[in-house]
Amino acid sequence: VTEAARGALFHGEIHEQPAALERLLDGCLEAVRAAAARAAGVRLVRLVAHGSSDNAASYGVYAFPLVANATAFRESISLLTYYRTTPDLGESLVVGISQSGRTPDVVEYVAAARGLARLTIAITNDTASPLAEAAEAVIPLCAGPELAVAATKTYTSTLAALALLAGALGGELDRTAEDLRRTASLMAGALTPLDAVARGVAALFEATGQMVVVGRGIEFATARELALKLTETCHLVASPLTTTDFSHGPIAGVGAHVPVWVIASEDPCLPAALEAATRARRAGAPLIASGSASGQVPEAAIRFGVPPAPTAPLSPLLSVLPGQLFAWALADAKGVDPDAPSGLSKVTVVP
Amino acid sequence: VTEAARGALFHGEIHEQPAALERLLDGCLEAVRAAAARAAGVRLVRLVAHGSSDNAASYGVYAFPLVANATAFRESISLLTYYRTTPDLGESLVVGISQSGRTPDVVEYVAAARGLARLTIAITNDTASPLAEAAEAVIPLCAGPELAVAATKTYTSTLAALALLAGALGGELDRTAEDLRRTASLMAGALTPLDAVARGVAALFEATGQMVVVGRGIEFATARELALKLTETCHLVASPLTTTDFSHGPIAGVGAHVPVWVIASEDPCLPAALEAATRARRAGAPLIASGSASGQVPEAAIRFGVPPAPTAPLSPLLSVLPGQLFAWALADAKGVDPDAPSGLSKVTVVP
Repeated sequence: VTEAARGALFHGEIHEQPAALERLLDGCLEAVRAAAARAAGVRLVRLVAHGSSDNAASYGVYAFPLVANATAFRESISLLTYYRTTPDLGESLVVGISQSGRTPDVVEYVAAARGLARLTIAITNDTASPLAEAAEAVIPLCAGPELAVAATKTYTSTLAALALLAGALGGELDRTAEDLRRTASLMAGALTPLDAVARGVAALFEATGQMVVVGRGIEFATARELALKLTETCHLVASPLTTTDFSHGPIAGVGAHVPVWVIASEDPCLPAALEAATRARRAGAPLIASGSASGQVPEAAIRFGVPPAPTAPLSPLLSVLPGQLFAWALADAKGVDPDAPSGLSKVTVVP
Repeated sequence: VTEAARGALFHGEIHEQPAALERLLDGCLEAVRAAAARAAGVRLVRLVAHGSSDNAASYGVYAFPLVANATAFRESISLLTYYRTTPDLGESLVVGISQSGRTPDVVEYVAAARGLARLTIAITNDTASPLAEAAEAVIPLCAGPELAVAATKTYTSTLAALALLAGALGGELDRTAEDLRRTASLMAGALTPLDAVARGVAALFEATGQMVVVGRGIEFATARELALKLTETCHLVASPLTTTDFSHGPIAGVGAHVPVWVIASEDPCLPAALEAATRARRAGAPLIASGSASGQVPEAAIRFGVPPAPTAPLSPLLSVLPGQLFAWALADAKGVDPDAPSGLSKVTVVP
């Protein structure tokens, strides 16, 4: 791998996200409308996923209650795949998420749930995949082939698909789609300046072996996804924590050698993020802040501002961009090829 | 603090766990029976907790489906406390867990849920606490005052209270209570030999700044609790991961400098734990294995065996003991007082 080519797939797909989001909006609205009609009035949503798709599910845990007044949770898949219990799905909506559509136990869960739940939906980038075949309804991501091992455009497009589904269940599909078009435009404007910040600061963290990423509420998904990107591509272990979990224990383990990254968006949970930042500084940790409210984080060493989203529940589509670009830039600074991370493959086939 | 006194509270309470469990069994059965009668037939359990109590909730996520065929999940408390949504609780059972009964947003959630859900239950060590007052039914832990900052006896007693509640909902309260009496006896027999192993190996990890703790299924609770104990008391950041999450990213970040601790119990998820261990070794990480199947973990540098539990769903009461003792011994080896961890207090009051 030449230096010029290192991470080219990863970097290219990060920058492709606004276009991928536009393609989703062009291609999936009828599928979302039809699926939501079949699931109208649903009170309980089970999100079935692993990896980046499971981080997107953390977004759904908030999007469905906030937008559609339904309860959503991340299903514990091993209850079916290892413990062989038959889930009592009642009237719940099952949403299986896998960009490849080939994550074995997500496929297995959705296949087993079909006919037992109110409706099974697949959110996938491959409409010919086993997951798409297993589910009763399919929402296609239309992101185009994702070739980098670390998911980026399918992550933000999955967030958007979940936002659309929640919006449709809440009777606001058209408005959500409009807000997402504006979000795509905001993403496009933000990427190049953020790229420059990431390139500029990455070398400061060349020796960093661990990091803590803190978020709360709907931005916990962002914290999880950012930690996963860093861990996948940069040979470090980044721990995602809610602001509360951070204060329950890990605060005792941080210090000058453990940078803390705080996701700070204009959102009702912002006070919790700011308090976590203050605690991290008191413990001596260098702070990185990202998000539309990163300017409010006291004593941040580095700030990655992003524009406010059209509505607060869409913030995570923008607040994840700095972390993606930072992961790319840090891998480059470390001389690691993020397109060939050791020990990882694109489709997770492990149990 | 003299050297002799360092960690004396923490160490004493670890060893007090069998007696605390006996007190729970002597003191709470009627309360469990009465609460379960009021919640008979419930299909959905919302677990509301932070910190160690939230780790115990991860146990409940599996115990309720496995024993009572009900779905359980860890509630996202910020939906109520920050986003101010009114949860649509329907016929769900709400279980608020806090050893002190004073975790503010757990109290707030349960108070708001009272009258909206099928039943609200408090599991707490203080029957005069605000949480006990907020809930319609109380299961007292009867653990006696817990003085160490890092919870131990209230953690295992909370697991037992959840096992009893699940057992009662599944029509097997008496048998569960008998199995827990035998578990208390097994704990008592295991603690002293495990203590010696922990004292012997702790110094090997004096320079360790981070660790990964891997578990799957019902033992994910143990992985979370062990990681929290290490992080609270030993000035390191330990990340708890499911076996699948481990293989999705963090496997790329481990190596000789990041020990991996695998929870390996006689349980349907054991194959996943063994595969994660193999991957960790392939990545060059030193392995620590604990649990009733730790002998099966290939190439473990250190093994903490515990006896098999009377039934698989009670394994986590035994498999957490090595981690608690190791955390105590490692803190001692590092010269840190686990009874006075920096930045932490017993009752979490942060949002």
